[in-house]
Amino acid sequence: MRLFDRFTRGELRLGRIEAFSDGVFAIIVTLLVLELKVPHLQDHASARELAHQLVELMPKFLSWLISFIIVCKFWLNHDHVLGLAHHADYGLVWLNSIFLMGQAFIPFPTALMGEFSRNPLAVSLFGCVFAVNTLLFLALQGYVVRRLIKPELAAEQDPRFFVKGLVGPASYLAGAAAAWFSVHAALVIYLLTPLFYLTPPAPRRK
Amino acid sequence: MRLFDRFTRGELRLGRIEAFSDGVFAIIVTLLVLELKVPHLQDHASARELAHQLVELMPKFLSWLISFIIVCKFWLNHDHVLGLAHHADYGLVWLNSIFLMGQAFIPFPTALMGEFSRNPLAVSLFGCVFAVNTLLFLALQGYVVRRLIKPELAAEQDPRFFVKGLVGPASYLAGAAAAWFSVHAALVIYLLTPLFYLTPPAPRRK
Amino acid sequence: MRLFDRFTRGELRLGRIEAFSDGVFAIIVTLLVLELKVPHLQDHASARELAHQLVELMPKFLSWLISFIIVCKFWLNHDHVLGLAHHADYGLVWLNSIFLMGQAFIPFPTALMGEFSRNPLAVSLFGCVFAVNTLLFLALQGYVVRRLIKPELAAEQDPRFFVKGLVGPASYLAGAAAAWFSVHAALVIYLLTPLFYLTPPAPRRK
Amino acid sequence: MRLFDRFTRGELRLGRIEAFSDGVFAIIVTLLVLELKVPHLQDHASARELAHQLVELMPKFLSWLISFIIVCKFWLNHDHVLGLAHHADYGLVWLNSIFLMGQAFIPFPTALMGEFSRNPLAVSLFGCVFAVNTLLFLALQGYVVRRLIKPELAAEQDPRFFVKGLVGPASYLAGAAAAWFSVHAALVIYLLTPLFYLTPPAPRRK
Repeated sequence: MRLFDRFTRGELRLGRIEAFSDGVFAIIVTLLVLELKVPHLQDHASARELAHQLVELMPKFLSWLISFIIVCKFWLNHDHVLGLAHHADYGLVWLNSIFLMGQAFIPFPTALMGEFSRNPLAVSLFGCVFAVNTLLFLALQGYVVRRLIKPELAAEQDPRFFVKGLVGPASYLAGAAAAWFSVHAALVIYLLTPLFYLTPPAPRRK
Repeated sequence: MRLFDRFTRGELRLGRIEAFSDGVFAIIVTLLVLELKVPHLQDHASARELAHQLVELMPKFLSWLISFIIVCKFWLNHDHVLGLAHHADYGLVWLNSIFLMGQAFIPFPTALMGEFSRNPLAVSLFGCVFAVNTLLFLALQGYVVRRLIKPELAAEQDPRFFVKGLVGPASYLAGAAAAWFSVHAALVIYLLTPLFYLTPPAPRRK
Repeated sequence: MRLFDRFTRGELRLGRIEAFSDGVFAIIVTLLVLELKVPHLQDHASARELAHQLVELMPKFLSWLISFIIVCKFWLNHDHVLGLAHHADYGLVWLNSIFLMGQAFIPFPTALMGEFSRNPLAVSLFGCVFAVNTLLFLALQGYVVRRLIKPELAAEQDPRFFVKGLVGPASYLAGAAAAWFSVHAALVIYLLTPLFYLTPPAPRRK
Repeated sequence: MRLFDRFTRGELRLGRIEAFSDGVFAIIVTLLVLELKVPHLQDHASARELAHQLVELMPKFLSWLISFIIVCKFWLNHDHVLGLAHHADYGLVWLNSIFLMGQAFIPFPTALMGEFSRNPLAVSLFGCVFAVNTLLFLALQGYVVRRLIKPELAAEQDPRFFVKGLVGPASYLAGAAAAWFSVHAALVIYLLTPLFYLTPPAPRRK
């Protein structure tokens, strides 16, 4: 078990992990807008032609909006979970890095769904990526709650947070399945899912 | 009212919200330059041809300049408003996220106005986006002043900040309307508007 | 020796060096995804065509994955080494800047290997760049351990860290050489190398 | 003088100004690599063709290298100057914002010189931009030294820092002039100039 033990070592400052994570979150949400590309116009001065082109961009706006909200939601919950930790060990660093890898991937399925908004695979993939991201987040949360939690906060944690948290991936996967029947249904599910996680859970009262 | 109550919970560290926001602001102002694309030249060594192409880029330089100044102005006022807050709750986090969503959108209308500088719709949209951004900022400011202000700073706040703040959106919307008659008039209005907000308001004396 | 002496001056706050470095690391890992470009489809709604195109993107996904893991590994070790330093001098700032220059270069060989995954030069170059980056990191580590280490941590350092650290560049260079015979062998070596450095070395016991 | 007085107000925390500036610096140095675009190859597996194309990219590598070093130099001197300040006022915020605007512009002339490395205008413009950036830095430094300096550091400042600092812009402008006769001479001057500023000036002894 020496390989595993390596990861329980280390007593890192949470400050740099948060700074690195905040940087990654900030860049993701800002990069998302780069997919909104300036359209080509035949007549540069035509308001009518530009209006028509902007309407065509609507699916990209919607993709951008959904991903922006979801990444902000992840940021808030990430802030909450790291705030529970007493310190960081190497296991947390790597779970956090893999979680951030999932986040950094988000611009790709977002662009894909924005470009091919009627392609069931593109829309379905979007949901799958967010399901995986939510699972990565739950793994991070589980690790903090089981191993690194501040003693004074331990009693406040809901022991069933993991099972409850599976509602998120299940909902994203339901959207991913729905995409093969109706992309609109999938979009509605993707929009509604983060609403259940807009705020971290309240501390439990005894 | 349980839905609303969720957002008044939470006592977050302002540090991470500021770090996330600073990251987003820093990326926006730096990404803006990516719209200044290297022109294509027939004769790579011709200074005359390059000079001609750079003059053609002038509208993009101007768009870049205006947006850079305005985002810096938002950054300074954002710093001021978060400095008034005693702590952050989830409502502030989400108002801040939506405000940053508006900021992160800025590269798109900036690129649009830079590319189609004689298109009234492109120039008008630029003003509308900044009007909305100023309203989002006022909402953030209102939330901090009403709910989260440090007790010792409460008396210094001008109770009419919101009404006074509406001058900004009104001015941007005037520019957006002017764009349909003269894009130059709109640009002058866009350049002058941020000058009124270069510094946060001075504290009131009793 | 006045030229050299200049660099031993300065007693800088580590905070800003870490903030700058964290920013660079965060941007690198997030920019890597930009190489995953949305494919062109003849039939926008065809799931089959999109699936085919995504399979074609596999080498880019793999390049992205390897670089992401390696940059995170560098981040963790960088955090560890700067945590050993008592303060920063100008020499550290410049060694750090040159190290970050090597890191900031990583998206280029990553994109090259992703695009030309069967080109031995592209795959070989990838390994060479990571060999150089590991050497730059060892130079940074050596400088901290020899000149800037916190007195209480000096005894814990393994005096042979530099020789041991050369295993990394040697392994990357072995991959770079293997690329000329088999690109798959090179990829396996590139994937295995960072596994030896997933955690900084444990402190020595006396 | 009311307009001017507004800028002497404000007592801002230097922390957020530094965080915003560090973000901008970090993004600039990392974005520079995006100009190194993956070349197009007829035969994707041909090492010979790729080698040929990489040699063609040499001017872009060189542009990237020079700009990276210069921006790191600015970062270090910026860190030094803000470290002299006791606090920040709105004047400093705006001088800093305009300085960062100059920095954020750097990717454009860098890309221009990389693309058109034999075009005297492109090479000359590069020097002009860095001359302006150095002047903006001197303005920032002058403002801090005259108005915001920590009392205990005031006596250490060289009163002729501004005149001495003009060597930088003069040297960049000499390179910009030389570009019209020999682009190679200009490049040598651009490479040598930052070497004089690799470390901030030592404190004066009485």
